[in-house]
Amino acid sequence: MAQQQGVIAIDWGSSNRRIYVLDNQGQLIDKVQDDKGVLHMARTDFPEAIAQLRTLHGDLPLILAGMVGSSRGWIETPYVATPVDMAKLAQGLLLMPSNKTALVPGISLVETTRCDVMRGEEIQILGAMTSHMIGTEGLICHPGTHSKWVDVKAGAITGFATIMTGEIFALLRQYSIISEHMSGPVTAGAAFRTGVERAMQRGYIGMDIFSIRASILLARMRREDAASYASGLLIGHDVITGLTRNQSHDPILLIGDPYLTGLYGAALDVMGKRWQAHDGETAFLNGIRALQEYMA
Amino acid sequence: MAQQQGVIAIDWGSSNRRIYVLDNQGQLIDKVQDDKGVLHMARTDFPEAIAQLRTLHGDLPLILAGMVGSSRGWIETPYVATPVDMAKLAQGLLLMPSNKTALVPGISLVETTRCDVMRGEEIQILGAMTSHMIGTEGLICHPGTHSKWVDVKAGAITGFATIMTGEIFALLRQYSIISEHMSGPVTAGAAFRTGVERAMQRGYIGMDIFSIRASILLARMRREDAASYASGLLIGHDVITGLTRNQSHDPILLIGDPYLTGLYGAALDVMGKRWQAHDGETAFLNGIRALQEYMA
Repeated sequence: MAQQQGVIAIDWGSSNRRIYVLDNQGQLIDKVQDDKGVLHMARTDFPEAIAQLRTLHGDLPLILAGMVGSSRGWIETPYVATPVDMAKLAQGLLLMPSNKTALVPGISLVETTRCDVMRGEEIQILGAMTSHMIGTEGLICHPGTHSKWVDVKAGAITGFATIMTGEIFALLRQYSIISEHMSGPVTAGAAFRTGVERAMQRGYIGMDIFSIRASILLARMRREDAASYASGLLIGHDVITGLTRNQSHDPILLIGDPYLTGLYGAALDVMGKRWQAHDGETAFLNGIRALQEYMA
Repeated sequence: MAQQQGVIAIDWGSSNRRIYVLDNQGQLIDKVQDDKGVLHMARTDFPEAIAQLRTLHGDLPLILAGMVGSSRGWIETPYVATPVDMAKLAQGLLLMPSNKTALVPGISLVETTRCDVMRGEEIQILGAMTSHMIGTEGLICHPGTHSKWVDVKAGAITGFATIMTGEIFALLRQYSIISEHMSGPVTAGAAFRTGVERAMQRGYIGMDIFSIRASILLARMRREDAASYASGLLIGHDVITGLTRNQSHDPILLIGDPYLTGLYGAALDVMGKRWQAHDGETAFLNGIRALQEYMA
């Protein structure tokens, strides 16, 4: 699986997958996103899905990252325990030489009082370091369905915490008592900032979310502000939790989807904290290129 | 609508309704529960549903309490603002003399920083006071889909806070990333108490819930303990929030479903707090009897 062949790299998550085709110089030559996330597939569907990708994009080596390597995905790829740098991540690759495929491992954290896992973010974070998008020490926030606050030191992930902000927001929007108020778009405007400020008072979210409904019923909140306020409240609690856990870095490094890093940046602005945002896709591709070096 | 006629009283909630038939002495002579909650009905279904009840149980006056009087129910019954005692609640009844029906109002709270509403719990809480099940001053917790922490003084509800504990638990069990681990029963055993203890550290619930999945994947938690642990975590946060809001009462008065008041009592035990539990159905019927006095 030498770099000269080019590679198909897939960021294969729970809901979606992003397929990237790199040429033998590591340049991106094709990119496809679809909704064939692992939760939409049976375990037995993967060989055929992968054969289809090779028919479409060429008979290239494959590198698969994310939930495809989880208990809900294709082949469970054992976690690598922190601390993890790119070399250790590469050592944990699950290789299937017969069909030129590699699965990227996730990372586990086991502390006395808390366990945590990640699958998919690690390659972006380590890739951002190996490609010098960011330095080799700091506090990184990767927002998403399950946002990650990640400590890095000497180029390795040394600790992290997962907060299910995106998932809680989605559950509230789809299924909850406030879902009827949550159809509007989320923007980082006044309602969002009010939500962040409320979170900074460190009340309990289970109370403040219900209060959205009461405030609308009693005409103290505009219905169209509810989704942005709820997002500000959830992202505010997320950021406060992340900053409380690790207070020793400035600026905060945001890596991920630009829309989400923008919202997290807006929350950090309300708190008077400095931040830098970096594109998660660029970081992912840099991570793939670095892994290829170890595989060559 | 004199008491002598007997009455059909309905605790008509979002998911279920409980129908009680009282004779002309106020004695319970029939009781039916079904799943015809307001979220399972269209607004236009109510007249027919009520006609059916009178065919089944007799052509009696009806008192309807709970979400039936909400924007999602039959006829929106305006909230009565705190403070509210039984006399003020009775003044807010929406009467339809033509068909001998009364809708019980909900209660609203508007503070500078927070709004809140209740519909259905107020009749239990005020009924518990008018019938001397409890005294006329104290801190009451009414657990449920939306638990209520209620301040009472001189026989009136003076303030309250809603926490959506039961709803968050149901969302996590039905739809979330940890739903596959949440099928077990909730009991107030060691896993539940561990969840309460975790909540007492006042971490962020959005982090601690994800940690359940990680702990199971890493074999640090037994799968069958997940539901009880999650319940302990959520009820623990609920109770801490309620006690932080109002710290001046001992014991805490629990009113509601005996299974739920048992779980809240177990959480209070972990925190070394005294409590007394009272049956919500008895309180509801006492509230109906008291309302009838005002209506006679």
